[in-house]
Amino acid sequence: MTPPPVPILLTPGPLTTSERTRAAMLTDWGSWDGSFNALTARVCDALVAIANGTGSHACVPLQGSGTFAVEAAIGTFVPRAGKVLVCVNGAYGKRLARICEALGRDHAVHETADDVPTTPDAVDRLLAADPAITHVGLIHCETSTGILNPLAAIAEVVARHGRGLIIDAMSSFGALPIDARRIPFEALIAASGKCLEGVPGMGFVIARTEALLASAGNSASLALDLRDQHLYMQRTGQWRFTPPTHVVAALHEALVQYDEEGGLPARHARYAENCAVLIAGMARLGLRSFLPPGIQAPIIVTFHAPRDGRYRFTEFYEAVRRKGFILYPGKLTELETFRVGCIGSVGPAEMERAVAAVAETFRALNIETI
Amino acid sequence: MTPPPVPILLTPGPLTTSERTRAAMLTDWGSWDGSFNALTARVCDALVAIANGTGSHACVPLQGSGTFAVEAAIGTFVPRAGKVLVCVNGAYGKRLARICEALGRDHAVHETADDVPTTPDAVDRLLAADPAITHVGLIHCETSTGILNPLAAIAEVVARHGRGLIIDAMSSFGALPIDARRIPFEALIAASGKCLEGVPGMGFVIARTEALLASAGNSASLALDLRDQHLYMQRTGQWRFTPPTHVVAALHEALVQYDEEGGLPARHARYAENCAVLIAGMARLGLRSFLPPGIQAPIIVTFHAPRDGRYRFTEFYEAVRRKGFILYPGKLTELETFRVGCIGSVGPAEMERAVAAVAETFRALNIETI
Repeated sequence: MTPPPVPILLTPGPLTTSERTRAAMLTDWGSWDGSFNALTARVCDALVAIANGTGSHACVPLQGSGTFAVEAAIGTFVPRAGKVLVCVNGAYGKRLARICEALGRDHAVHETADDVPTTPDAVDRLLAADPAITHVGLIHCETSTGILNPLAAIAEVVARHGRGLIIDAMSSFGALPIDARRIPFEALIAASGKCLEGVPGMGFVIARTEALLASAGNSASLALDLRDQHLYMQRTGQWRFTPPTHVVAALHEALVQYDEEGGLPARHARYAENCAVLIAGMARLGLRSFLPPGIQAPIIVTFHAPRDGRYRFTEFYEAVRRKGFILYPGKLTELETFRVGCIGSVGPAEMERAVAAVAETFRALNIETI
Repeated sequence: MTPPPVPILLTPGPLTTSERTRAAMLTDWGSWDGSFNALTARVCDALVAIANGTGSHACVPLQGSGTFAVEAAIGTFVPRAGKVLVCVNGAYGKRLARICEALGRDHAVHETADDVPTTPDAVDRLLAADPAITHVGLIHCETSTGILNPLAAIAEVVARHGRGLIIDAMSSFGALPIDARRIPFEALIAASGKCLEGVPGMGFVIARTEALLASAGNSASLALDLRDQHLYMQRTGQWRFTPPTHVVAALHEALVQYDEEGGLPARHARYAENCAVLIAGMARLGLRSFLPPGIQAPIIVTFHAPRDGRYRFTEFYEAVRRKGFILYPGKLTELETFRVGCIGSVGPAEMERAVAAVAETFRALNIETI
């Protein structure tokens, strides 16, 4: 089958990768071979370095999607008799609670509206009131809307109470700073196919090494036991089970380019510009973004759909797709919205073109946006 | 980094893939997009068809390595109060038992020596003696040695006793026939990067649809709940969590080539010839294979290492690698062996060249093989 013409993905992962990153998958690697072990080691070292965790933290890569790594982190770090305070303001927070439920880990849910960040005060109050809580689970940037939760302030509160923090940094890691020397956490979870601009297929957990080593006996899984994965890798240099070799090679190449671009500050600046260009361009069309600027992460933007009764998301999506851009559906139940990602191997020029494609589409479909 | 010159992988997955398969990873796919859903559907349909399960069976793809899919199958199909008879004659049987242990599923282990297949009689006797056993776990071809277990006869015994069969067909599926119309099983597990010659990064389970639907409440995992994955995919056409899009695209392309080659009979014939050429060539060098021909699957061959005291596997491995072939270490604790895979996008010509590389290496290292 010939693949269809390739549109630009303005989605929050999988996303558009660079040609160099994809070309890195043209080589087969032996999973037992020294050259592949060296590749894995370089990837892990680079990931720990991005979090400023060299020396204190370890990177445990894990086969599968980011959610597999989130489940692995809950299962590995939360003792069977532990309790998790899950902070929810979107679908990924809800998923974290569902994982605790499935794993049989006691948990409490602190839910705020989709456009209301979790506050350190609320976490402070809830931890003070419930000494049974051993861990707090927080989504750094909630991809459902693009909302940013105040990680540093919450981490400080969690540390003050002597509890462990588990951060789902899936859609922020690599683009928004998370400094392990200043932000105390037990585990931070992200994945290959997000802001690092690799392809999807592996997650990873940046863990405080001491907490990781102390987690023996927690996990009720073989595949998702991060401590076991870590110890085996330390001993052999290899993954416990067949690694997604091509995905690892692509991530390695993506990290080389990350460095060349200028690391986190440069990645953040490009995404911030993408986001600003997108929001300004859509505003010119009369399309309002859902979140106020102060809590909008430069990762993905939720836009209110036009009020025009002729608007249908699927028709809009397909028309924009034919113009070369893949958008993302909204994830709010009460409001008609759609989402546009700012991440991936794209710059302001692509965002301008995407806005133009949206404008042309509305004109062609005869949909009023103001 | 420039990758090193690419040797041919004579390893049991990851293995050498075709250029076309790797080139299929040069496209980025949106995981929400209709074109990607169609790709997933074609892959699943093709996999069910290879097992002759169309109509009666469903394919549930799963992110991660094959072991993730094995754990998912045990967790999904074995009720929490169930009991698994695990048939062991190598490392993968042992791993299956370890998975039962981790998941807290009661199990009994029936272990035979590395070169002794599980017999239907033994399974018959054990099932008759223990009515608590609800499931039998069997490794079809044990990659530790290359031994083939008599699947059809064991499946018949398991069905006669009214128990469920879970087959780890990781290294046999697609090359050795498993006909779901004649071999009763609840679940058969394999992965993208084995005899189908895709790249590693996803497993899949071919499940009797009825058993899959009846498995509600068994899994104590969100990520590894195959029923949940299946129902979501049925409803939406999408994977529950970010799929390894490039790995799926590569498997799709590999399956197109599988068909072009002539499907299972052709794949089996090529591997059988690879295996015969390999064993005959190594025999000419004086290297004996570990298994007798009757129980040797044409997947991977275990060879006794030369008795010469100067032989060191690592030195041998590195020297053969420099000649362009990656071999595999042995996995037997009592005997010094090494392994050579017969699978992947390689034919008899590559096997002859590999034998020549081994011969030259022994000559150069001054190691006597006879």
